[in-house]
Amino acid sequence: MQIEAPPTGRDTPKPQGERRGLVIVHTGNGKGKSTAAFGLALRAHGRGKAVKVYQFMKVPSARFGEHRMFEQLGVPIEGLGDGFSWKSRDLEHSAELARQGWARAAATIRAGEHFLVVLDEVMYPLRYGWIDLPALLDSLRERPAHVHVVLTGRGAPQELVDAADTVTEMTKLKHHFDAGVPAQRGIED
Amino acid sequence: MQIEAPPTGRDTPKPQGERRGLVIVHTGNGKGKSTAAFGLALRAHGRGKAVKVYQFMKVPSARFGEHRMFEQLGVPIEGLGDGFSWKSRDLEHSAELARQGWARAAATIRAGEHFLVVLDEVMYPLRYGWIDLPALLDSLRERPAHVHVVLTGRGAPQELVDAADTVTEMTKLKHHFDAGVPAQRGIED
Repeated sequence: MQIEAPPTGRDTPKPQGERRGLVIVHTGNGKGKSTAAFGLALRAHGRGKAVKVYQFMKVPSARFGEHRMFEQLGVPIEGLGDGFSWKSRDLEHSAELARQGWARAAATIRAGEHFLVVLDEVMYPLRYGWIDLPALLDSLRERPAHVHVVLTGRGAPQELVDAADTVTEMTKLKHHFDAGVPAQRGIED
Repeated sequence: MQIEAPPTGRDTPKPQGERRGLVIVHTGNGKGKSTAAFGLALRAHGRGKAVKVYQFMKVPSARFGEHRMFEQLGVPIEGLGDGFSWKSRDLEHSAELARQGWARAAATIRAGEHFLVVLDEVMYPLRYGWIDLPALLDSLRERPAHVHVVLTGRGAPQELVDAADTVTEMTKLKHHFDAGVPAQRGIED
């Protein structure tokens, strides 16, 4: 029987040698970018590490399933947006919120008190120009060496891909919306 | 300013109309297949739904970060494997465990008592032929209509992709292992 290499117990080399924070990017048009970031937050928290989740496209009052769980676990998750959509009348307000949110996230990264900082859906304000890409790259480059940062969202800029340690593209092969099946509570939110 | 469609508050259509369980596949060679499944489990649990996680390639005693957290949350997670690796001497034992594990998972799916059943890394025993693909497809087709099933692992068979509602391929664009950076506790396990 021909057996290819399966995952080992941990699906990766054993941790050894260099310990340092990683820049991890989840991009692409498929599902799973944010949920995989939440899974990483869950795992790190399970190892007793300090985690902070910023969500650039969620309002502070968002109460989806993940918010309820993170709250129960004691993982701080913070919505930085204003429910911005392409119908928004006041894009300048959205832009200002994104800038303020980024300032908070950048301060958290720089402070080095967290093992893992998630910047969920940060690609949107980045691509709209509301967050300055060079400033974000500086923040990543100058961060304390032990801090892991996960950035999610479609359309990661090439400069960010270049700067990252690990980049995964989530690609939609098929989606139930395309077959007319609507969003399901508990799955999509 | 040219603005493309960003995510709305929920990044999806509002839940309405048809409510039914979905078959969701995470495949590809990139990271995030399992962690995104864990994120879905977290979200569903946060909505008060019953969730069960089976891990086909983890031993029952696995105590990675996700296990510690799911235990704290009260989400049952069960390793069905024997630490199988390509160095295993006793593949028949691994195969038998996979068959027994699948029987348990199939019974859980059929019973309909869970909103979401995760079959983590089920593609390995499927591709090795330890689990019968037609039997798995039958189980999905005949399941109670409200049950969501998430299946993860590289190399999802085409018949499974055809049968699924939503399929995301996680593709590695780059990975820190390739740059010589080893696995980091709290991120990889």
